[in-house]
Amino acid sequence: MTLPGPVGRTPLEPKADRDTVRRHNLSLVLRAVREAGEVTRAGVSARVGLTRAAISSLVEQLLESGFLSESGKTFSGQAGRPGTVLKVARTGVAGIGVEINVDYVSVCVVDLAGTDRVRLVEHLDNRGATPARVLARAAGIAARALTSAAEQELQPVGAALALPGLVAAGTVRQAPNLGWSQVAAELPFADALAALRPGLPALPVRSENEANLAALAELWFGGLGAMRTFLYLTGEIGVGGALVLDGELLRGAHGFAGEIGHVVVAPDGPECRCGSRGCLEQYAGQSALLRAAGIDETNGAVAVAELERRARAGEAAALSALERAGAMLGRVLSGAVNLFDPDAVVLGGIYRPLVPWLAPPAGAELGGRVVSGLWPEGGDRLRASSPAADAARGAAALVVQDVLTDPVAYAITSVAGRA
Amino acid sequence: MTLPGPVGRTPLEPKADRDTVRRHNLSLVLRAVREAGEVTRAGVSARVGLTRAAISSLVEQLLESGFLSESGKTFSGQAGRPGTVLKVARTGVAGIGVEINVDYVSVCVVDLAGTDRVRLVEHLDNRGATPARVLARAAGIAARALTSAAEQELQPVGAALALPGLVAAGTVRQAPNLGWSQVAAELPFADALAALRPGLPALPVRSENEANLAALAELWFGGLGAMRTFLYLTGEIGVGGALVLDGELLRGAHGFAGEIGHVVVAPDGPECRCGSRGCLEQYAGQSALLRAAGIDETNGAVAVAELERRARAGEAAALSALERAGAMLGRVLSGAVNLFDPDAVVLGGIYRPLVPWLAPPAGAELGGRVVSGLWPEGGDRLRASSPAADAARGAAALVVQDVLTDPVAYAITSVAGRA
Repeated sequence: MTLPGPVGRTPLEPKADRDTVRRHNLSLVLRAVREAGEVTRAGVSARVGLTRAAISSLVEQLLESGFLSESGKTFSGQAGRPGTVLKVARTGVAGIGVEINVDYVSVCVVDLAGTDRVRLVEHLDNRGATPARVLARAAGIAARALTSAAEQELQPVGAALALPGLVAAGTVRQAPNLGWSQVAAELPFADALAALRPGLPALPVRSENEANLAALAELWFGGLGAMRTFLYLTGEIGVGGALVLDGELLRGAHGFAGEIGHVVVAPDGPECRCGSRGCLEQYAGQSALLRAAGIDETNGAVAVAELERRARAGEAAALSALERAGAMLGRVLSGAVNLFDPDAVVLGGIYRPLVPWLAPPAGAELGGRVVSGLWPEGGDRLRASSPAADAARGAAALVVQDVLTDPVAYAITSVAGRA
Repeated sequence: MTLPGPVGRTPLEPKADRDTVRRHNLSLVLRAVREAGEVTRAGVSARVGLTRAAISSLVEQLLESGFLSESGKTFSGQAGRPGTVLKVARTGVAGIGVEINVDYVSVCVVDLAGTDRVRLVEHLDNRGATPARVLARAAGIAARALTSAAEQELQPVGAALALPGLVAAGTVRQAPNLGWSQVAAELPFADALAALRPGLPALPVRSENEANLAALAELWFGGLGAMRTFLYLTGEIGVGGALVLDGELLRGAHGFAGEIGHVVVAPDGPECRCGSRGCLEQYAGQSALLRAAGIDETNGAVAVAELERRARAGEAAALSALERAGAMLGRVLSGAVNLFDPDAVVLGGIYRPLVPWLAPPAGAELGGRVVSGLWPEGGDRLRASSPAADAARGAAALVVQDVLTDPVAYAITSVAGRA
């Protein structure tokens, strides 16, 4: 598991100014320890190509600032004399991710290692409420998660919002299923959260499309192994999508790439909230799927579990709804694969538990429609997302990524936040 | 017009080995002169950030090797004292591009400036012939173009083949409209060309998908200006596609991205040569378009001109064929734009002269189906390719790009090739 940052992998030359070099090298050492899991100073030295003396000084600062922890355990698998073992700290600096979706809010706190340490999910309907109300609710849920984090001595240094729509420069340009248009989300959320935590430092807040963050979570924490170019679909009330090209999000010219839910399936199909007709969402979104299976869609999470139960029991309506949705997904995916030539297609969100029924019809469409050579038979290139990877965790990890890139900027100088 | 190479834009530090530094800086100076068009030594110095003395030495070597030429003309628009003016040489090192398509072969020789200096197009039907026969034919056409180039004192140092199919590592994995499968194209072409030019140095040959090369030509020689993320469609017997992301070809995981011609439009539509049904090609490819307009498709180039003539004359069958093809293009493009979020969509190949009729129905689909914000109304984001940019020129320019990246590797040491 790696969290690649924008900083290069080699020590800077000493000609850059001393402070810049040291900050860069602190990041390098912190990331090396994180990737290794457990490692001696000698092991870090071998990994990053700096002298033992330099490493010792850098490690000392990272220990003092609380980014690393040390145990007396010796470690004999490593060259050189045995030493104490370094790990990234399991307390202190952390990140919080807040996914605001149509019928739930999911909050995740991860530590420096990227481990999911606090998870709070509330199912509620965000469709009727104003953006301000939804953001205030989400801030309330985040505040409760922060209390849980503080009990584990974790102190998030920033928050990232995962939102189901076109997000750029802190504004939700459009989130049709929430009914949002031109909503600046970060500031209202930050203010609402600050009001709930009097006396505690305000958290910087950023925002991003939820499918993008789920895709990053899959890249960082999922089981894709060497596959670093993939298409990610997340089934929710809407159908979100993201493209990852060689380990980087493909954002397009305006930051809005990946809107697979609004690829047209049937030109004269049902009206979509986006203004078009016959979008994939109208055939394979959560509401369409539940309606086709004859399941009351009011409570999304319960309803999806019910769909899974009925499919497992072999109920005809459930099976045919999944068959149809799978074929529609496969049809759109075949076009996307022809265009983008990914290693894999990952199905997340509500699709994850439904993959056993969605994959066969989708796979048949892919097999029949993708230009030969782009989608070899067999293998597990159409796959369920990892249960350990979702948008909230991706959002939280994004905050941690900033810390890893420049730990000095995030060193915790006071323990007030842990109260 | 720039041909960005993989080499960075700043001089290397003197700590790298001396030869590497000099080769890098020769490339830097050559590219600076090329971008400027005409420039004094002082102007080059200002552009690349090396001293006048260093520039003079580098320029001297580039003049001696025939990459630059110098005129006595003074140039007063530049800071510093007037000097002689440097330009890239219009003779000597060049590149040759060979587009092998279903019903034509087009060969282009470009000089170091990227200017199209020789063009030879032969309309013929490559569908009945074996790959070896097609490649030998193409080599014959290339040999004639090389004779024309020699008369202009141009000496291509490499050839690039543009092929309508999935191309990777020198092999055409699949080119359904040529009927090719697993064809290694480079060596047979090189051998056939060498046999036609006894006593002349053999040309290194590379190969690439034709839509990719047409897209690069559009990027380098077209009128896209600041738009560096775009989708390129080329109408031929097949429909090729390419995606350019911030000035770089998006190749996907296996090098095959961009196959927009095989995105499905109608799941139960006509069979396609790729093995699927209802691909875009079956509605908007050259054959489908001509058939729908009631025009004999035997001679492609003449037939497309006839379609344009009839459309201009307002003939109903021609107009409705174009209307339908444009709508189908727009439908598939709306999905591609939702996925990829480009600045522009460029229509090339046979679509270029037909854009006046294809653009309105395609634009209506785009306007109605692209998620709002991704495809603002108005502007010229759906546009015809530049007549100066095609796959053959892109292929030839790819060879020149190699030269610009490391001119030393391509210095012409003998004039035998000019005979």
